[in-house]
Amino acid sequence: MKLIHYGDVENTPVAIEGASKVRMRVLISEPDGATNFRMRLFEVGPGGCTPYHKHPWEHEVFVLEGKGAAVDHKKNRCPVGPGSIVFVPSGKMHNFVNTGEQTLAFLCLVPTDEVRKWREE
Amino acid sequence: MKLIHYGDVENTPVAIEGASKVRMRVLISEPDGATNFRMRLFEVGPGGCTPYHKHPWEHEVFVLEGKGAAVDHKKNRCPVGPGSIVFVPSGKMHNFVNTGEQTLAFLCLVPTDEVRKWREE
Repeated sequence: MKLIHYGDVENTPVAIEGASKVRMRVLISEPDGATNFRMRLFEVGPGGCTPYHKHPWEHEVFVLEGKGAAVDHKKNRCPVGPGSIVFVPSGKMHNFVNTGEQTLAFLCLVPTDEVRKWREE
Repeated sequence: MKLIHYGDVENTPVAIEGASKVRMRVLISEPDGATNFRMRLFEVGPGGCTPYHKHPWEHEVFVLEGKGAAVDHKKNRCPVGPGSIVFVPSGKMHNFVNTGEQTLAFLCLVPTDEVRKWREE
């Protein structure tokens, strides 16, 4: 059993195109023995956002703190805050925008590469 | 895209043997299009616990609030609180115990039946 506090996990800037003021901690992943899905924690600074993009896998999101918007494939901006749950289906455009003055923090889980490959076969 | 607040999801008593003062909300699952893993939120009342058991799938846990212990396969009681992350590998005995005076709340994600079946084949 692995037991840690998220604050002890490295908080890495997300450098991909379209990401602004985004950092990510990989909390649980393959090296832990997690072969099916990964747990990550994202922090988006005030004025920042994740890329507006799509990909062939889903997101399961739980918002921990802050104030923001989840933007859907029709560019609808849906307000989110602590306790909000978002399911982004595979293949749909989406992003997360910080609309507040504090950090927007959320868990975002994705299938591992192995599961993605199995799904695509 | 599905967007809800966890408080709007039905909170069902967990009636399985060994569970005490446990309630569960299924936040994201197959009817939402989530074919790989499910997000559930558990609430354990003061003095309560989840069953000490094992099963052939993993848990990915994020503690939201309260004070408790994650018990491992050697019966070690590891303290947990808000922000604790627990990975319980498949096949290992485990449970979660509320050791505080408030509700212990945590997210617990598991692979869906389809992924479990694929893994076991």
